[in-house]
Amino acid sequence: MATIVLYSINRTAQTTVRQCLIPYSKEASRVDSHLSVFLKTSVRRLTSLPRVRWVPNATGVRFMSLGTAGRTAPGRTRRGAVLVAGAAVTVAGFVASATHFQRAEMASVIPKTEEEDTEIAEKCKTFMSPPCTDVKVLQQRKEEMCTRMEMLIMETQAEFCRALEEVDGGKFKVDRWERKEGGGGISCVLQDGRVFEKAGVNVSVVFGNLTEEAAKQMRSRGKVLKGKDGKLPFCAMGVSSVIHPTNPHIPTVHFNYRYFEIEEGDGTKQWWFGGGTDLTPTYVNKEDGAHFHNSLKEACDKHHPQYYPDFKKWCDRYFYIPHRGETRGIGGIFFDDLDSPSQEEAFSFVKSCAHTVVPCYLPIVQKHLNDPFSPEEKDWQQVRRGRYVEFNLVYDRGVKFGLATPGSRIESILMSLPLTAKWEYMHEPPKGTLEADMLEVLQNPKEWV
Amino acid sequence: MATIVLYSINRTAQTTVRQCLIPYSKEASRVDSHLSVFLKTSVRRLTSLPRVRWVPNATGVRFMSLGTAGRTAPGRTRRGAVLVAGAAVTVAGFVASATHFQRAEMASVIPKTEEEDTEIAEKCKTFMSPPCTDVKVLQQRKEEMCTRMEMLIMETQAEFCRALEEVDGGKFKVDRWERKEGGGGISCVLQDGRVFEKAGVNVSVVFGNLTEEAAKQMRSRGKVLKGKDGKLPFCAMGVSSVIHPTNPHIPTVHFNYRYFEIEEGDGTKQWWFGGGTDLTPTYVNKEDGAHFHNSLKEACDKHHPQYYPDFKKWCDRYFYIPHRGETRGIGGIFFDDLDSPSQEEAFSFVKSCAHTVVPCYLPIVQKHLNDPFSPEEKDWQQVRRGRYVEFNLVYDRGVKFGLATPGSRIESILMSLPLTAKWEYMHEPPKGTLEADMLEVLQNPKEWV
Repeated sequence: MATIVLYSINRTAQTTVRQCLIPYSKEASRVDSHLSVFLKTSVRRLTSLPRVRWVPNATGVRFMSLGTAGRTAPGRTRRGAVLVAGAAVTVAGFVASATHFQRAEMASVIPKTEEEDTEIAEKCKTFMSPPCTDVKVLQQRKEEMCTRMEMLIMETQAEFCRALEEVDGGKFKVDRWERKEGGGGISCVLQDGRVFEKAGVNVSVVFGNLTEEAAKQMRSRGKVLKGKDGKLPFCAMGVSSVIHPTNPHIPTVHFNYRYFEIEEGDGTKQWWFGGGTDLTPTYVNKEDGAHFHNSLKEACDKHHPQYYPDFKKWCDRYFYIPHRGETRGIGGIFFDDLDSPSQEEAFSFVKSCAHTVVPCYLPIVQKHLNDPFSPEEKDWQQVRRGRYVEFNLVYDRGVKFGLATPGSRIESILMSLPLTAKWEYMHEPPKGTLEADMLEVLQNPKEWV
Repeated sequence: MATIVLYSINRTAQTTVRQCLIPYSKEASRVDSHLSVFLKTSVRRLTSLPRVRWVPNATGVRFMSLGTAGRTAPGRTRRGAVLVAGAAVTVAGFVASATHFQRAEMASVIPKTEEEDTEIAEKCKTFMSPPCTDVKVLQQRKEEMCTRMEMLIMETQAEFCRALEEVDGGKFKVDRWERKEGGGGISCVLQDGRVFEKAGVNVSVVFGNLTEEAAKQMRSRGKVLKGKDGKLPFCAMGVSSVIHPTNPHIPTVHFNYRYFEIEEGDGTKQWWFGGGTDLTPTYVNKEDGAHFHNSLKEACDKHHPQYYPDFKKWCDRYFYIPHRGETRGIGGIFFDDLDSPSQEEAFSFVKSCAHTVVPCYLPIVQKHLNDPFSPEEKDWQQVRRGRYVEFNLVYDRGVKFGLATPGSRIESILMSLPLTAKWEYMHEPPKGTLEADMLEVLQNPKEWV
């Protein structure tokens, strides 16, 4: 068990943080029910940081996958049961309206008890909206990764939105949308709040056939993809969020956790996880930076000692604006194409990361809630937000993929853009100012733990 | 001679507009001196539009080019003189410090009289800054297209900046910059003015060897480019401008006129012109739209009856934001790869367009100078500016080329971004509002003449 002293938080805040941390220390079956309890309990207000012990239990539960890394053989489900192709087709016949992907998933489902079904249904009630996939379908394929990931992203969305509502006092506007090509999503946006200028937390679950452009993009990333009749059925899902607070002393946070599955011509499935959480402050605050990065390191360390150092570097590399010669913010972690050591272990890691979002960010929000700020500080924030827009529109792979994917919901993709931004010609903070300090950090990424 | 009644302008305004129009009607040698006079004369204030005859002389002077369209054979200058390769090298020896391109240009220079040299030097004094290329070099290669185009873009910059200063009362900040890979530019920016929130007028003259990426891009546009030892020397120059006024009733204008030359391995030169002028209003104003488009049509019609209809369509296609399903503004004209019917004729057309910038935009600025506006109207302007940013960062070929070109001056490329912009989640103007009218026009491009 690792005990890391991070920040001091008062008793109420401690309760909340502990609730967030409990899932890491328990076996898989209890994780979800704890989270469910957490969601049903109204999130208590976190107050300012300093001086408290933050005590997570270290190791997570390990699972063994029977598939090879990132690949599931045809006719063999992820639980290892060999299916007769004909049986799969017969089962599929019952859900003619479902997509190719849903059919493939459902073919490998094992009958559930009524109790298990109730558990999924109960959890769904705590979400911001009914999930994208029909609850009955989720119940039928409860053991499948697609279901488990969809439940995780829905839980993460609800957990984060409720924590933000608690601190802001406002309510998220919830939009449920469908993608005519397959799938849909749930966008939660809080705009012009007391604390948050624009806060967006988005879930999407899309499926269909990869466009040639998308397949090309993936191949360029080293993926060998052999389609059938030129078709590559895929399923992609994720939760993503960008929070832009009004006060320039409260940093912007972004996180995104996603899962991807592609079915090749011979029935083989390729899958991988991706994600990350990163912070974009307007001013340097070493204490905040340390808290944020330590929280992430702690989540990573439970799974692999190389995760934090590797994914921290990846984050600095990814959120880089070449034409400005600076990073977007002070980073965090970023990873993609994670398909090892096993699907269970990769999922367990993603779960740890997702559950770290609230404890790594909310204490920072609370700490700066009432910080006074000047018009000049607000102005600098607006200039930095301009850079945020530049990164997102010019370089962000997710945005580029989204804008190029037919039927994408543009408002959800561009939800990440700030409410307001500014481009001043030749804006150069004078040396020795706090603004110049921030730039220096962005030009030379630091170690925060 | 074509007489087109456009708008009524009072006597002072008429004088200014006539000055802008004179160059079209005279032979080449007088064009520049007229413009020079125009630049030395302080631009008189244009007042509100309606009721006056706008009387340009129609036909321009035609020149004959000896090169084939868009291509100049090696050892043959554009004036048709056959050069012995050795002689070219000898001449080039005198300017060892000049680039490959400058050397190639200078090899074909014909000795100038002192009077002609003085003319260039005198004109340069009226510019916002000394030109990018040394005045002596310009004098030595006075007949070359590179020189003539550089003079035109410098003139256009000065003409437009002075007209904007006159109406705003503020002064442009002039930055002269060099590109270490070759060339440089002059950026003129007026920020936080009385009328203009951000006005940028940029000239750049860059040369060097095409990067592999840039060559690939050009080949994808159908250009056959055969380098020597993998090198493709190029020279690119242009004037570009984006003006964002404060008042939402004064539209944003953008124009860009450019010239490109590439030298292939065998000494053949490929050249082409590109450019356009387009308007982005926040609210529909049919009268403004008609004035703007008629001015452009008039400039086009002097050169080819198909130019306006073709380039108007091209503009609507180019300034289109696919993910929004709308154009950036109400268009104007746009063309690229113009390498026919001859270099002289193409240049003459570009010159007409460049000289139309002031008369097509300034009367609209004057007309709305004192229009009152509400916070809601300002807000809608900010939302539209967000779309402007989206187009420029995601789709604009010039911005993409600039951001990907090593040594580009980012502040000059991104000068086109507005001072402030806004992204409201799910912003949808109610039906029947003026904002919805604007959207309708952007979703279904109109004919304005």
